[in-house]
Amino acid sequence: MSLLVVGSVAIDSIQTPTETRENVLGGSATYFSYAASFFAPVKLVGVVGEDFPAEHVELLRRRGIDTAGLHVVRGGKTFFWKGKYLPNMNDRETLEVHLNVFGDFRPALPDSFRQSEFIFLANGSPVTQMSVLAQTPGARLVVADTMDLWIREQHDELMALFKRIDGLVMNDSEAKLLTGDENLVSAGHKVLALGPRFVVIKKGEHGAMFFSQHETYVLPAFPTAQVIDPTGAGDSFAGGMMGYLAAQRNFEPKTLKEAMAYGILVASFAVEDFSLERLKRIDRSDLDLRMEQYRKMLSF
Amino acid sequence: MSLLVVGSVAIDSIQTPTETRENVLGGSATYFSYAASFFAPVKLVGVVGEDFPAEHVELLRRRGIDTAGLHVVRGGKTFFWKGKYLPNMNDRETLEVHLNVFGDFRPALPDSFRQSEFIFLANGSPVTQMSVLAQTPGARLVVADTMDLWIREQHDELMALFKRIDGLVMNDSEAKLLTGDENLVSAGHKVLALGPRFVVIKKGEHGAMFFSQHETYVLPAFPTAQVIDPTGAGDSFAGGMMGYLAAQRNFEPKTLKEAMAYGILVASFAVEDFSLERLKRIDRSDLDLRMEQYRKMLSF
Repeated sequence: MSLLVVGSVAIDSIQTPTETRENVLGGSATYFSYAASFFAPVKLVGVVGEDFPAEHVELLRRRGIDTAGLHVVRGGKTFFWKGKYLPNMNDRETLEVHLNVFGDFRPALPDSFRQSEFIFLANGSPVTQMSVLAQTPGARLVVADTMDLWIREQHDELMALFKRIDGLVMNDSEAKLLTGDENLVSAGHKVLALGPRFVVIKKGEHGAMFFSQHETYVLPAFPTAQVIDPTGAGDSFAGGMMGYLAAQRNFEPKTLKEAMAYGILVASFAVEDFSLERLKRIDRSDLDLRMEQYRKMLSF
Repeated sequence: MSLLVVGSVAIDSIQTPTETRENVLGGSATYFSYAASFFAPVKLVGVVGEDFPAEHVELLRRRGIDTAGLHVVRGGKTFFWKGKYLPNMNDRETLEVHLNVFGDFRPALPDSFRQSEFIFLANGSPVTQMSVLAQTPGARLVVADTMDLWIREQHDELMALFKRIDGLVMNDSEAKLLTGDENLVSAGHKVLALGPRFVVIKKGEHGAMFFSQHETYVLPAFPTAQVIDPTGAGDSFAGGMMGYLAAQRNFEPKTLKEAMAYGILVASFAVEDFSLERLKRIDRSDLDLRMEQYRKMLSF
């Protein structure tokens, strides 16, 4: 079943305590698309500048990702982010950010994208996210991500968006910021009360929590000693989750929990190298093998 | 099967962002004993002053905890700790600490305690912990806890202890401090290399990790919105874990994992009120019910 993602496509420069990578492929929609492509065909909507290397587009296309919605702005420059991870590999500082063409991103969906049924609104302003909903009349499941910037600066627009979406994915610090509640269980329930039918709180190395009216649960991260670059872990999680849901063509509670687990496992691979490098070296069977190990780990 | 614990028995004054409790029952051996008593008979070794309320001793005795090893120092005062939790309910400040009679604690085991087979050395100096080993010739499983103070100030003694114990329980910040490694998976393996046959790293609200030569796994905490007082959560975890092992009379990998889960669940109740208040209101059937919910949460 068709899965649509709208979000950023970027060039990143990343510093970790031990290594540096300059000008690698990044962006929320990029990580999401690649992660989802292990499970289902993906349609990507984003914007890049004329500087965006053709090899990156090729990489996505070879994964079955439809890039008809990736708009190239003549003479424009691609969104650039430069960041530095602290020794705990969780906290990070932004050293440079140039929105470039992404600053004027007004997603316009190709006709062939408008009947998409599974929709992921990757991080972007709630106004931009909302504008996608008007273009997807066939949507069956809409899930959005958000971030601290919009919680602080476009609160009303975000509240309006929450009433229009089925699921919301955010990280732990954002859930605390939004609700003013330091307990993630009660914070999750407070976010749920704002409109979404389910809420996922990502906890980085500690896994992810799920909240719906009838269910609250937490699944741990897959323990990996090899955390090389956490960039894109959250978007890889969302991509794995939504890709699995689209492949299963439903979002029943049972499917959602399996999808959460696949999201966690795709993310566990994503952090094992810079950019998409680790994901490029695995296939679906690696995910299924890790899933077996994960299920075994949680059985007793 | 007999379970022995050696550690502190204390009076605590606790401030949380919303409430304060003065002079309540606390201490590592206290929480451990009460938690373990849901599963197995416990023998407690500790020291208190003449000021220690008789009702606290009565409470422990009514749980089947053998207090023959609880030494009362005439004219002495009980170990007192006053602490304040920050709004995240995880970090805390010590406002006052008076070791009192615990400062001179030299555990001397009653004869009836010396053939104990399951031994828990709750937090104390590694020299004190080691002194217990000489008095327990029948030990089959020895598990110890430790803390930052001993890692910093009695490093050599701690290293000697690690070579004598079967299991080590510590929290995440202590594992990072001891190994200098910020990744808990590799930190766990480094601690394992120091001698213990298994290592448990407690992650507070995020659960606990287990490491042995053949197995690495993480189990999440049970999600509870009601975190009133986290004091003693780690000792309650250890008590639940060791109590279950003693009841099962073995420490096979399968039993250890079940024990980890019971530890997590006892701790999840312990934090739902001050001191032992919540644990006093539950029985084994409440733990088993939560275990059912926990297993269901981790199944998909």
